Amino acid sequence: MSIITLLTDFGNQDSYVGVMKGVIAQIAPTAILIDLTHAIPPQDILAARFNLLNSYRYFPDGTVHLVVVDPGVGTERRAIAIQLDQGYLVAPDNGVLSGVLEDLGNFKAVTLENRQYWRTPQASHTFHGRDIFAPVAAHLANGVALEQLGPPLPPDDLTPLPLPPWRRSQTGITGTLQYIDHFGNLVTNIPGHQHPPAPWAVILNQHSIPGKLTYGEVEPGTLLSLVGSHGWVEIAVNGGSAAQQLQAQVGDEVRLVVSSE
Amino acid sequence: MSIITLLTDFGNQDSYVGVMKGVIAQIAPTAILIDLTHAIPPQDILAARFNLLNSYRYFPDGTVHLVVVDPGVGTERRAIAIQLDQGYLVAPDNGVLSGVLEDLGNFKAVTLENRQYWRTPQASHTFHGRDIFAPVAAHLANGVALEQLGPPLPPDDLTPLPLPPWRRSQTGITGTLQYIDHFGNLVTNIPGHQHPPAPWAVILNQHSIPGKLTYGEVEPGTLLSLVGSHGWVEIAVNGGSAAQQLQAQVGDEVRLVVSSE
Amino acid sequence: MSIITLLTDFGNQDSYVGVMKGVIAQIAPTAILIDLTHAIPPQDILAARFNLLNSYRYFPDGTVHLVVVDPGVGTERRAIAIQLDQGYLVAPDNGVLSGVLEDLGNFKAVTLENRQYWRTPQASHTFHGRDIFAPVAAHLANGVALEQLGPPLPPDDLTPLPLPPWRRSQTGITGTLQYIDHFGNLVTNIPGHQHPPAPWAVILNQHSIPGKLTYGEVEPGTLLSLVGSHGWVEIAVNGGSAAQQLQAQVGDEVRLVVSSE
Repeated sequence: MSIITLLTDFGNQDSYVGVMKGVIAQIAPTAILIDLTHAIPPQDILAARFNLLNSYRYFPDGTVHLVVVDPGVGTERRAIAIQLDQGYLVAPDNGVLSGVLEDLGNFKAVTLENRQYWRTPQASHTFHGRDIFAPVAAHLANGVALEQLGPPLPPDDLTPLPLPPWRRSQTGITGTLQYIDHFGNLVTNIPGHQHPPAPWAVILNQHSIPGKLTYGEVEPGTLLSLVGSHGWVEIAVNGGSAAQQLQAQVGDEVRLVVSSE
Repeated sequence: MSIITLLTDFGNQDSYVGVMKGVIAQIAPTAILIDLTHAIPPQDILAARFNLLNSYRYFPDGTVHLVVVDPGVGTERRAIAIQLDQGYLVAPDNGVLSGVLEDLGNFKAVTLENRQYWRTPQASHTFHGRDIFAPVAAHLANGVALEQLGPPLPPDDLTPLPLPPWRRSQTGITGTLQYIDHFGNLVTNIPGHQHPPAPWAVILNQHSIPGKLTYGEVEPGTLLSLVGSHGWVEIAVNGGSAAQQLQAQVGDEVRLVVSSE
Repeated sequence: MSIITLLTDFGNQDSYVGVMKGVIAQIAPTAILIDLTHAIPPQDILAARFNLLNSYRYFPDGTVHLVVVDPGVGTERRAIAIQLDQGYLVAPDNGVLSGVLEDLGNFKAVTLENRQYWRTPQASHTFHGRDIFAPVAAHLANGVALEQLGPPLPPDDLTPLPLPPWRRSQTGITGTLQYIDHFGNLVTNIPGHQHPPAPWAVILNQHSIPGKLTYGEVEPGTLLSLVGSHGWVEIAVNGGSAAQQLQAQVGDEVRLVVSSE
């Protein structure tokens, strides 16, 4: 019994996701389909990368993660599949997998050139999710070997996604906001285990936001910093939206400092 | 073959729900997962209570209902599981289950203190859905007995959710709006079987809205009152949104009266 | 192992869809449930028709497609089931199935009058999705024969959905916008195989939009026409929203012409 997860920017308005599931069901009728999310902002590779990176480790070994955020569909960008110790990734080669691949290091990649595993030998110009990625994910769930899907791709040839790294400075750690979630929590790119000994704070747009362990340590409506469940330093409001309160955006600079308080 | 339903305020934007499903799939790979909704407004216990109350009776016996609307995560609020004749409930102890429990009366409760059934012995401070509630729901679906999950909790110790009751007066029944759905239907807290003999009407914000059996009895665009499919008296517009037309909000007072018409 | 797809205007806010799935699980516990979409605008039969028409052919034979966009619920409108060579359709008789039925031609129809296959012999006045359509879909997935569900309905008695057809003129083909998707792509009602030999263009609101094969052939932010993955001529923006850029609406007239360029 295999699991296929789906992560796209197709939204929930149209039946594009349903169509991909129908295609999968034709090839791998017993596969279990689990949505990660389909509400990635259109063409937002960075947001898709974040959601995949923070989800993959919670799934059983052998899971196939299917990612279709594909601004380059119909161009020369490659379609790829990756084999990890834990399972498989299927996606366009646009950097969307880079978070997981940096996390793990050890993997094999192929380009999806073997049309035998496409839905039909001729793919459309605009919906490779339906015509290439979903069928390939279904075949992997069925036990088809990675090597059958196409020629190997050296890991160094994968398209990178250049991201500004966090860095240490004399006054602490400088990073950026990498994601804003549905609750308005502002997720930085600073790993939680990097925060200095307490007391600490995060500085964003001239606000100094004290580091805590959990929401309930501050009054409702109050800002706090904490290490989120995904393992990143984040800024939140107890019972509210930090994104609204701070008018912050992905890419904003943050500084993690030892707090005088 | 067990069913687990999921009801949260996590939204459909992020992969938090997907992560919970991955955790469940690791423990109970054959469980069938059914979403009730994940679009509960953030921290809105009342809306979650309403949706659970009006859904649980349509599921097969043995279904596990997993509810994560959890403003108190990381505080001292308890995590609980409930055994009903019909199945199980797993949730934070914040009143979100109170509708079902008042409905049924007969149940057993435990606090989720046995860390053997958590995802790991140490839970995060902010995502008990992933670390405690989802794994416990999966273990219940696998047949683990309620008593193994933690010490019993006397029903009277459960956290109540104080709701204004409907009440009879000389001129009819006074209640409040308890929920507004996606169609803009305004659902009162007055049980449908309480409406007076026809003709009847509901008064809201000085509008007197005539009681009918179904939408089609009035012209398109016209207000009507009726007993909704959930069994509550509601106010609707045929082919439109009563919420928009009346600018009403949850908590607004309504009166159910014998109509002169 | 049967598949049931679900297509409604119930939205993702409430648990109405979850309730239908619970009802199905009581009758057909091993059926696989796949959402097409639940974000059809309330009562928008045309949008539901479009999504069903462009999805059904990607599902395995025997799939049951359950469609509940039902402005006439509680009136005299019929509830129907259809048997195709490929599977089944279950819906209110309001034209929502007309796209598929015109596509296929060959089918059998019945009205859902046999209350033995309803959830209970007495249906609510407002939620036939729960009380009639979902249970009937589940029984079909279980192998109940179409004829058992109620008396046959001659195809010519089905309620039509009058749609303006595309037509040839001396200067090309005139059609209308039939759907706008989540990406802001404007889908016309002109079949893709009708476009003239290249170069061609689509004219909408005095813009002449050049015909291409795929998004990547124009600069980011630029308008193009192409044959979409569903097979219709559509207007798009590479990496953007044509709906926003052109302020276009469903029903707007378009003209497909031989381009001078």
